[in-house]
Amino acid sequence: MATFRASQVVPSPAEDSERLRKAFVGLGTNERAIISILAHRNAAQRRRIRETYQETYGEDLFKSLDKEISGDFERAVLLWTMDPAERDALLANEAATKWYPGNRVLVEIACTRSAGELLSAKKAYQARYKRSLEEVVAAHIKGDFRKDISRSKLHISLVPMVVLLLFPLVSCHRYEGPEVNVALAKSEAKILHEAISDKVYNHEEIIRILGTRSKAQLVVTFNQYNDEFGNPINKDLKHDPKDEFLATLRAIVRCIFCPERYFEKVVRLAIEGLGTDENALTRIIATRAEVDLQLIKEIYAKRNSKQLDQAISNDASGDYEAFLLELLGHEEN
Amino acid sequence: MATFRASQVVPSPAEDSERLRKAFVGLGTNERAIISILAHRNAAQRRRIRETYQETYGEDLFKSLDKEISGDFERAVLLWTMDPAERDALLANEAATKWYPGNRVLVEIACTRSAGELLSAKKAYQARYKRSLEEVVAAHIKGDFRKDISRSKLHISLVPMVVLLLFPLVSCHRYEGPEVNVALAKSEAKILHEAISDKVYNHEEIIRILGTRSKAQLVVTFNQYNDEFGNPINKDLKHDPKDEFLATLRAIVRCIFCPERYFEKVVRLAIEGLGTDENALTRIIATRAEVDLQLIKEIYAKRNSKQLDQAISNDASGDYEAFLLELLGHEEN
Repeated sequence: MATFRASQVVPSPAEDSERLRKAFVGLGTNERAIISILAHRNAAQRRRIRETYQETYGEDLFKSLDKEISGDFERAVLLWTMDPAERDALLANEAATKWYPGNRVLVEIACTRSAGELLSAKKAYQARYKRSLEEVVAAHIKGDFRKDISRSKLHISLVPMVVLLLFPLVSCHRYEGPEVNVALAKSEAKILHEAISDKVYNHEEIIRILGTRSKAQLVVTFNQYNDEFGNPINKDLKHDPKDEFLATLRAIVRCIFCPERYFEKVVRLAIEGLGTDENALTRIIATRAEVDLQLIKEIYAKRNSKQLDQAISNDASGDYEAFLLELLGHEEN
Repeated sequence: MATFRASQVVPSPAEDSERLRKAFVGLGTNERAIISILAHRNAAQRRRIRETYQETYGEDLFKSLDKEISGDFERAVLLWTMDPAERDALLANEAATKWYPGNRVLVEIACTRSAGELLSAKKAYQARYKRSLEEVVAAHIKGDFRKDISRSKLHISLVPMVVLLLFPLVSCHRYEGPEVNVALAKSEAKILHEAISDKVYNHEEIIRILGTRSKAQLVVTFNQYNDEFGNPINKDLKHDPKDEFLATLRAIVRCIFCPERYFEKVVRLAIEGLGTDENALTRIIATRAEVDLQLIKEIYAKRNSKQLDQAISNDASGDYEAFLLELLGHEEN
């Protein structure tokens, strides 16, 4: 259910490279040409264009793009043009090295990608940054922790919780087979409910269950929780809407239980209110256009009584708007 | 530096299968034939024999072996005949589901295999046991924890430490490139030394550093520790020789710093004293014969003023002894 569709008849990578090169050279840049080519090539085609461009012109396509375009448009084009694993590696690195409360990118990457996709992203991360994502997550959050000690004692107990929470998410290679254990789901739903009822949200059992069980198993556990205790687990995790740790737990549950609804919410919050969170909007569209953006659009339309492309048109402008709308499959409506 | 050498001229998998089948059928089993074939085939050849045997006789070779041979000899033949990833999956599962103090098998598998080998073992684990090694390690040790609460309060603080220690080891996909950061090694050697001097051996920084840094980085960190603070880190971790947590930390350091010396010690302890720890002896020989057993033999000879094959001959007997000696390359001496 992707929105993105590659053109039926695709020019050769050499032709695409040549057209891109022409769009770059001379006075001014032909942004429309960049959009018309890159927004209509799939991941494998974009990779071949990049390789051919490098061979032909002796320069990385990303370097050329960086010289010619800028701002939100540039970020959208670069993120989209990257391989999915490379893109996740970059996003994860931004999130891990500039970590701030409210940043859910690591949760999103760890919980909405398959085990194989997450592993590919971690391998791309190692190739690019010469270290593992795991050590950066563990070390950076520690760094943050040390800084915070001087400011407020609250963080002393808070941050090790976040380490414990994020670390298994990014490090675990979850089982993805179809087998689920209903008895285990019942017993772990009970464990979750007890910890939540006691308001011990950072209970190591919550972290262990969310961090290590397979997604299929967790979906059964969440359903058991709802059936047995009368509330969706995320309702019970709303005790304090401003609590960062609880918000992270809810994001994990949403990413596992229904990733499309999670993505719709990120997009909605990015667009809603004064100003737009372009980083979040670009991230979701660039990472989901080849996966499940069609479903996200449908959920968005139902939830907001408005089409997503219309909402983006109202909020974004220029080449950035045009590029996002192409990825959204605007012309098909 | 493996001891194992496949025969120069190897019969076809069909011939080997037929000879094995002949060794099984009729009255009595021809153990010498089993040894002469399987102990002289490399991992790829053993895999093909197993496939051919299954196709030809409609039975898993392991099932046939299980019917015909038994005891330590059986365990050695089965472990050796398995694919390395499958073998590690089986050993890890035994260790994770029958966890007991002093069991270092998980540390050994997590810290002496490459990231790719550990990942293959984890994939083999999922294929065989329909769940991830990570979730079993996390859940089982929790289970052990709960049982222990009733017995002794000591374990309440002990076991989450072990969870924290083992979990990153089995879950992390460590970076394996050559890059090391000497400044980081200096600062982390200092962090390790401070925690060890304060006797806070379960300090989250110790767990983070040992669990997530690349092995090349850790070797530099251990050397910095020795240079800066005058003792090898493992000497400072010997505060209480009976402390299980400290012993686990030392095993991690040894597995990373010098795996061959770690293996020599396991073999030495398995042979030393009254009785033999056949499980440990079989494990090391079956897992290292194609890797670094030659080096382990040399270290053993130097450390114990005695050849390893001589020591095994004194301790083991019958087909079990004969099989181990073949894997040790006895005939070459």
